[in-house]
Amino acid sequence: MKNLLTRRSIRRYSDRQVGDELLSRLFAEAARTQTMGNLQLYSVVVTREADMKARLAPAHFNQPMVTEAPVVLTICADFNRTTQWALNRKGHPGYDNMLSFMNAATDALLYTQTLCNLMDEEGLGYCYLGTTLYQPGQIIDTLQLPRLTFPVATLTVGWPDECPPQSDRLPTDSFVHHEVYRDYTPQSIDAFYTTKEQLEENRKFVQINGKETLAQVFTDIRYTRADNEAMSAELLRALHRQGFID
Amino acid sequence: MKNLLTRRSIRRYSDRQVGDELLSRLFAEAARTQTMGNLQLYSVVVTREADMKARLAPAHFNQPMVTEAPVVLTICADFNRTTQWALNRKGHPGYDNMLSFMNAATDALLYTQTLCNLMDEEGLGYCYLGTTLYQPGQIIDTLQLPRLTFPVATLTVGWPDECPPQSDRLPTDSFVHHEVYRDYTPQSIDAFYTTKEQLEENRKFVQINGKETLAQVFTDIRYTRADNEAMSAELLRALHRQGFID
Repeated sequence: MKNLLTRRSIRRYSDRQVGDELLSRLFAEAARTQTMGNLQLYSVVVTREADMKARLAPAHFNQPMVTEAPVVLTICADFNRTTQWALNRKGHPGYDNMLSFMNAATDALLYTQTLCNLMDEEGLGYCYLGTTLYQPGQIIDTLQLPRLTFPVATLTVGWPDECPPQSDRLPTDSFVHHEVYRDYTPQSIDAFYTTKEQLEENRKFVQINGKETLAQVFTDIRYTRADNEAMSAELLRALHRQGFID
Repeated sequence: MKNLLTRRSIRRYSDRQVGDELLSRLFAEAARTQTMGNLQLYSVVVTREADMKARLAPAHFNQPMVTEAPVVLTICADFNRTTQWALNRKGHPGYDNMLSFMNAATDALLYTQTLCNLMDEEGLGYCYLGTTLYQPGQIIDTLQLPRLTFPVATLTVGWPDECPPQSDRLPTDSFVHHEVYRDYTPQSIDAFYTTKEQLEENRKFVQINGKETLAQVFTDIRYTRADNEAMSAELLRALHRQGFID
């Protein structure tokens, strides 16, 4: 995995096409990822048509890479296929519940990340859109996702046309615990976060956003309680609509 | 990623130790994985002590690799650290909700899979335990996981002492859709599943379990409605206990 240490999210893509053959090979290779009971509880919807990208864009807050990338991949938790299989084979599927959603979401996310690591090795650029969970209803409508499927990840994919700076990461000690979870203290928070907070780009980010601290940019502007609560309600509605919760 | 195509889950490990230095390097490298807002919403709890493994084992149905593996890793969705950071920095964190749980679970699962791919490249063996979501309360107690953290994946890790046959996979066409999700028909189910059903090991699996079809082994024995519903209730109770849902 020679390219992992130099990876960055890529949001601008060249005109070069991403061939179907290449994509199919990566889809097949990524399927070696472990999966629950070998059921492969995921589906990938490939979007190449301009009008379909335009219809997906609002669900992703119209981030420009959705319409500009040659390919958009929506990876879905999928208990529909397994359920259809079982119904055609005298089985008694019972996957309309929260655990089954989480099992399928897990399969889908692990598959997604192997695909990302494979794309890094090929030199393909991609950007992971966390917005997928924000307004899932729009994505479900556009891609015609049936009951017992749910979009959990979106990747915009293409050949890189930029090389942005790498983002920083916390020290490993900050997220690795031995034997039991050692909770944080004001002192350990300082030790783990001060370097990050003092980086030139993060100080600038605080200033541009008119805040006093970096944490405030996240809690007061980017990921606020009000937004999180509204989008949680939408997420739960969509989980109900897709048959995973009552 | 030269070892991806030959990977298999490894449940038996040699006596050779997995060094702290190697693990730390892999933890750091895996952290290059994309993460929401660069917040790294995950934690890893490393279990090496025999009595801690013994306490974790029941939550994983006493699968022998939990006590036999030199290392057990429990990867957690973690909004606690970010919340503590924000509280120490005059922020207003609002991450006690379903969307935030899913965002952190996503970060944790993507991180987990990069770690798996890195371990494959090192020749380390591992087995992913899907049981993590079945009785999370026991794991939370044992590892002393605070509010706004949640265990989402467990890996048993060691140097391989077996080379089991690779499991089969469905054809790529069965899970890749173009532009819209094309729902399954009895004909497409036959086309996608017949090869799998006719494999010698799967026919044997059906016979051993005294069932008529492979699908029935999954729906009637391994992942039944009754179990899924009981464990969904436990999952929701644990999400409530950890502060992610009301």
